[in-house]
Amino acid sequence: MRASQFHIGTLKEAPSDAEIVSHQLMTRAGMIRKLAGGIYNYMPIGLRVIRKVEAIIREEMNRAGALELLMPVVQPAELWMESGRWEQYGPELLRMKDRHGRDFVLQPTSEEVITDIARNEIHSWRQLPKNFYHIQTKFRDERRPRFGVMRGREFTMKDAYSFDRDEAGAQKSYDAMYDAYMRIFTRMGLTFRAVAADTGSIGGTRSHEFQVIADTGEDLIVYNPATQYAANIELAEAPCLVAQRAAPGRALEKTPTPGATKCEAVAQMLGLPLASHVKSLALAVEPEEPGKPVQIWLLLVRADHELNEIKAGKIPGLDRGYRFATDAEIVEHFGCVPGFIGPVGTAKPVKVVADRTVANLHDFVTGANQADHHYVGVNWGRDLPEPDLVADLRNVVDGDPSPDGSGPLAIQRGIEVGHVFFLGTKYSEALKATYLDETGKPALLQMGCYGIGVTRLLGAAIEQHHDGRGIIWPRALAPFEVVVCPVGWGKSEAVREAATKLYEGLKEAGVDAILDDRDERPGVMFADWELIGVPVRVTIGDRGLKEGQIELQGRRDEAAAKIPVGEALAATLARLAQAN
Amino acid sequence: MRASQFHIGTLKEAPSDAEIVSHQLMTRAGMIRKLAGGIYNYMPIGLRVIRKVEAIIREEMNRAGALELLMPVVQPAELWMESGRWEQYGPELLRMKDRHGRDFVLQPTSEEVITDIARNEIHSWRQLPKNFYHIQTKFRDERRPRFGVMRGREFTMKDAYSFDRDEAGAQKSYDAMYDAYMRIFTRMGLTFRAVAADTGSIGGTRSHEFQVIADTGEDLIVYNPATQYAANIELAEAPCLVAQRAAPGRALEKTPTPGATKCEAVAQMLGLPLASHVKSLALAVEPEEPGKPVQIWLLLVRADHELNEIKAGKIPGLDRGYRFATDAEIVEHFGCVPGFIGPVGTAKPVKVVADRTVANLHDFVTGANQADHHYVGVNWGRDLPEPDLVADLRNVVDGDPSPDGSGPLAIQRGIEVGHVFFLGTKYSEALKATYLDETGKPALLQMGCYGIGVTRLLGAAIEQHHDGRGIIWPRALAPFEVVVCPVGWGKSEAVREAATKLYEGLKEAGVDAILDDRDERPGVMFADWELIGVPVRVTIGDRGLKEGQIELQGRRDEAAAKIPVGEALAATLARLAQAN
Repeated sequence: MRASQFHIGTLKEAPSDAEIVSHQLMTRAGMIRKLAGGIYNYMPIGLRVIRKVEAIIREEMNRAGALELLMPVVQPAELWMESGRWEQYGPELLRMKDRHGRDFVLQPTSEEVITDIARNEIHSWRQLPKNFYHIQTKFRDERRPRFGVMRGREFTMKDAYSFDRDEAGAQKSYDAMYDAYMRIFTRMGLTFRAVAADTGSIGGTRSHEFQVIADTGEDLIVYNPATQYAANIELAEAPCLVAQRAAPGRALEKTPTPGATKCEAVAQMLGLPLASHVKSLALAVEPEEPGKPVQIWLLLVRADHELNEIKAGKIPGLDRGYRFATDAEIVEHFGCVPGFIGPVGTAKPVKVVADRTVANLHDFVTGANQADHHYVGVNWGRDLPEPDLVADLRNVVDGDPSPDGSGPLAIQRGIEVGHVFFLGTKYSEALKATYLDETGKPALLQMGCYGIGVTRLLGAAIEQHHDGRGIIWPRALAPFEVVVCPVGWGKSEAVREAATKLYEGLKEAGVDAILDDRDERPGVMFADWELIGVPVRVTIGDRGLKEGQIELQGRRDEAAAKIPVGEALAATLARLAQAN
Repeated sequence: MRASQFHIGTLKEAPSDAEIVSHQLMTRAGMIRKLAGGIYNYMPIGLRVIRKVEAIIREEMNRAGALELLMPVVQPAELWMESGRWEQYGPELLRMKDRHGRDFVLQPTSEEVITDIARNEIHSWRQLPKNFYHIQTKFRDERRPRFGVMRGREFTMKDAYSFDRDEAGAQKSYDAMYDAYMRIFTRMGLTFRAVAADTGSIGGTRSHEFQVIADTGEDLIVYNPATQYAANIELAEAPCLVAQRAAPGRALEKTPTPGATKCEAVAQMLGLPLASHVKSLALAVEPEEPGKPVQIWLLLVRADHELNEIKAGKIPGLDRGYRFATDAEIVEHFGCVPGFIGPVGTAKPVKVVADRTVANLHDFVTGANQADHHYVGVNWGRDLPEPDLVADLRNVVDGDPSPDGSGPLAIQRGIEVGHVFFLGTKYSEALKATYLDETGKPALLQMGCYGIGVTRLLGAAIEQHHDGRGIIWPRALAPFEVVVCPVGWGKSEAVREAATKLYEGLKEAGVDAILDDRDERPGVMFADWELIGVPVRVTIGDRGLKEGQIELQGRRDEAAAKIPVGEALAATLARLAQAN
């Protein structure tokens, strides 16, 4: 490609709504242009990266035996009613009516349609296993789209769906996808981690996320640096940090803590370590039958820990859905304003759930259910009954012992770019997707589903690979692998010849190269290509040519290396081979 | 690909709503599955053909210097309001609201968005010319979707948009796209014709359609077999068939023609040739200001000709939009029931437009504006005033002299698969898309737009290439180029070895081959692959192998040729090279 024939739309300034670096850099590099909130045009340089991402995904999906098909963007509501998601899915599901008033949705994902295909196409166990995928436009009507392609409304996703005879087969399909994902993200040159994850609204029994490691990631990943253990903090098991509950060492005492509604303030006021304080969180569950009272729960975590709302949502009784209690509900049940509540002596009975660590504490501090007062020296059994339930309620923290028993856990941030789900029969049951087994009897298809956020990957790769000058693409994703920058294109025949020869040589060698024949000043060229993030740059100018030299610089290199003109092609290829 | 790993969904019966052969065969071959009216799943074998179509288009678009980008499926209404098409476009434009109540459309085409991109990205004449294209999902909410992928609602289209400094530049861009389209459809192995066409709702000043020739086509193409002249019948110029008007030869006479409302019946009743009759068509134009009367026009074409409604719509006065007059309007203006009206002695004045040929007739027959009566021996000037306007009003008929002056025209049917438009400044003016010219002054961008119906091409290719057994793919579009059919796969080690060796050899030679390892009977295999339309089939069985032979058969061949086993690969490659 010659730059004069291409469209380079680099910008000096990022748009004011670009909060994160990938959004800023993708816009400044001319990769994307906003059309509406969360809806982007992918400009030629951005689309080149998308096509490389798609090609890698496609190759590895095919290698794993998956079959590509294409399901429509516009899907009839009937199938979504059949699965129940027409009701369950919130306003993120964009619904619309056609000219005849029939209901349709813009697909956010395709479980319904693929299960419909499977129930029509798969008749016999002989046809199994099968894995179908497509790379298609998705739409999720996010309430507040932001972060560029990271949380857009219209985006491209690869979604695959496996069908098997039984759980063992489905596990094999799951494992094959897991392995394919490992190859895909490795080939892309990304630092990533596969982590056990919560299944969320897709459902199913187990899942793994593939997280690109980046300080700016929205997800927290818990991992054991010494082993394979890794999980999303939503799921990562937090152990009990106190092996055995000690006997009470001090008497229960009500202490004034004027204005101290936060544990940190109480700890400071009382001169006690934060880890001896217990945080009390009041939750409310709406009644199952109208007219019955709201149920109030009290969840207890150590003051230096944080409640994990996903874990809380899995507790029997809270799994129907919960919310935080209102101030009025707190006053009614605890006889006290928020900030000073606790499990000792509530005004009305509440369900008490203690985190594993809290359950083994002794002599701890809690709110006293009286404004501006806390209890010190609280002990289970003596000052209050044993908790109704002990459960893992908190987020793992750095240094917690690993659930696999070997060493401490670490935490890092990640960006979810892939997710594999073991679905089981959730959708095949709802849509009655069966096959005839070896005995001729109908059996439900066992399913898995497997997503990769194609356009989101661009943002994730940039969050991981950039510096103050711009993007630093891994070679496999770069819009161009090499840029040839002739200095004085318009003036010097020698420069034009040398640059064109190298460019043609690179093309013949199968390198995705661009020749910057715009006749721009070196500063403009360099700034553009560093912003765009091309891995290797070759500069050819009259001064160097007189000395028989060209300049070669990797995007991460501090300075350019001088190379004899005669070795230009070989040296560029060698430098490129070193680029990730 | 091995068939056992693939999904082959051939069906014995076509769905009852499949009216045309491509719809029937695409469904029976397992290429498509209907999800909703006009919305299809593209199954793996169908998607393989789509990908080949897309690859050819992409290569030739890139070769022509066009730049690929990707514009969203969901587009904000504001841009459509700016161009005026939010109002002009009918219910085929699917409109919807997002969760915040903002208006969006599902794109049927992207003139608005690309013009918005151009006005933001193109600042200077130095950036011109530019041609941007994308291959993207489109949606048109057809009132009555039918004919499978030929008139679907969701479909894939390649649409390109060129931007130039002036008309001459825009013409060059147009010509480059015309040439690229010629290469694209030639490479696809299709018999097609580029024809001058009407610009319709897209607008602009001139256009060409690319029509795949097929008896089942919806379009009529007029062409001169001796020259390059070709046009859609909507546009093709119809000459005057009577060089000079002869002097009246007989007196005007009112003749009873009881019950004969059609010219054919009148001609038979009177024993006069149909070509001496004139058909009278009453049109109505709504008043420009409410309250004013409806305007009635009388259009006259020779009885053996047909009115061309598009040509009528271009006549000054009718170009505001017209409809056929109601019975009441006819009675009011002609003083006579429909079927017997004519230009002589109307009850109220009407605008009379005569087709070129009608204007030179003498002694002709028309309705007498009296029930059950016609005039014979009608002559211009003598019996009625000269027409208000003489114009080309009719469809060309087979044998009409060609407008280029050399020989008679012929007519054939075609399926529109591509369309190039010279847009001029229609959209750049509406959206104020300007660039700074060499003098530093803003000037409007000159535009062209260029579409290819990607998914529609599958249907068109099949309408042109099929027989009683199924599809006959041109090699360039075939889902697989060669199928290797082992007879007795499960039983014979020799068959498995020979078939696998040939299959591997084909793959190494870069052939897109499939090995049918399903262990099906020959009849089942042959029926499947003839239905699917693979260009070359190789059959390998124990009986043949004993004689050292395999069987090779092109999809159009009457019988298989026996080939020595040792020459299997070379012979297959040679046979494939002959396949279109």
